[in-house]
Amino acid sequence: MTLTIRLADKMVDRAGIWRILEPVIRAGETYPLPRDMTDKAALTYWLSSLHTSFVCEDDDGTITGTYYIRPNNSGGGAHIANCGYMVAADAEGKGIATAMCAHSLKTAREMGFAGMQFNFVIASNTRAVALWTRMGFETIGRLPGVFRSPTRGEVDALVMFQRL
Amino acid sequence: MTLTIRLADKMVDRAGIWRILEPVIRAGETYPLPRDMTDKAALTYWLSSLHTSFVCEDDDGTITGTYYIRPNNSGGGAHIANCGYMVAADAEGKGIATAMCAHSLKTAREMGFAGMQFNFVIASNTRAVALWTRMGFETIGRLPGVFRSPTRGEVDALVMFQRL
Repeated sequence: MTLTIRLADKMVDRAGIWRILEPVIRAGETYPLPRDMTDKAALTYWLSSLHTSFVCEDDDGTITGTYYIRPNNSGGGAHIANCGYMVAADAEGKGIATAMCAHSLKTAREMGFAGMQFNFVIASNTRAVALWTRMGFETIGRLPGVFRSPTRGEVDALVMFQRL
Repeated sequence: MTLTIRLADKMVDRAGIWRILEPVIRAGETYPLPRDMTDKAALTYWLSSLHTSFVCEDDDGTITGTYYIRPNNSGGGAHIANCGYMVAADAEGKGIATAMCAHSLKTAREMGFAGMQFNFVIASNTRAVALWTRMGFETIGRLPGVFRSPTRGEVDALVMFQRL
């Protein structure tokens, strides 16, 4: 299977992206977003004009993953990128998150960013923590109990960073 | 001199707040905001509907400081507060930042927040780092070179946190 990562079409791809976002947001285990967020609010956020958004397609054109890249701050902090990634529940284990992260690091370099920062990696999301570590991110700090998981109660979040 | 800290009036106090924000934003040394930000954009941000905003007044009603408090994230991260503080250039050394920080910690507890997080304390702002440390914040992590100072080049930023 070939994965194609391309810029999201902020109109045409909305349904395909929402199919991925909805179960992740409803579960509320990996992103600090309201679990009852509407499709409109979620897509406004994910496809914000401040975000450069991508989709990952498989051979038959199904969108199996999506990510965005944006400056993590403005002004004197605008040279550091931030990304968010989501993979379709039925497409896990196919290397899509790895492919999107590698693509985002390359894209960030091309866009002139000098580093990439993840502000809120939920520590119970151990697959993500392991993957970002493999992709070169260092854990800069651990914030105690800053995320309330629907099933686990208070869990820590990590700040992760790598220079580009 | 008595300091009074009260909720900002998002209409009446605009000029008084802008008098404080403008030199801080133009200097670009302590906040990751565009140095050329307009008054309208800066006040829209500082007095955002997502922020609860306060001013500090001296005896004659002059606004000498301002701060906001907001949830640092939404969803499962909404129980942690974040604040931003600014003091008038001509009112430094009078304990205004200390008074506002103490007020914000009390307010955060009253609002039901379980912790307070500062995401981006610029390490060259040594007075702020020392003050937040005195006020009970721990440095959770140090992000290398994530701020470009107009006069110092790349400087680190700290993530600081305390439980409430």
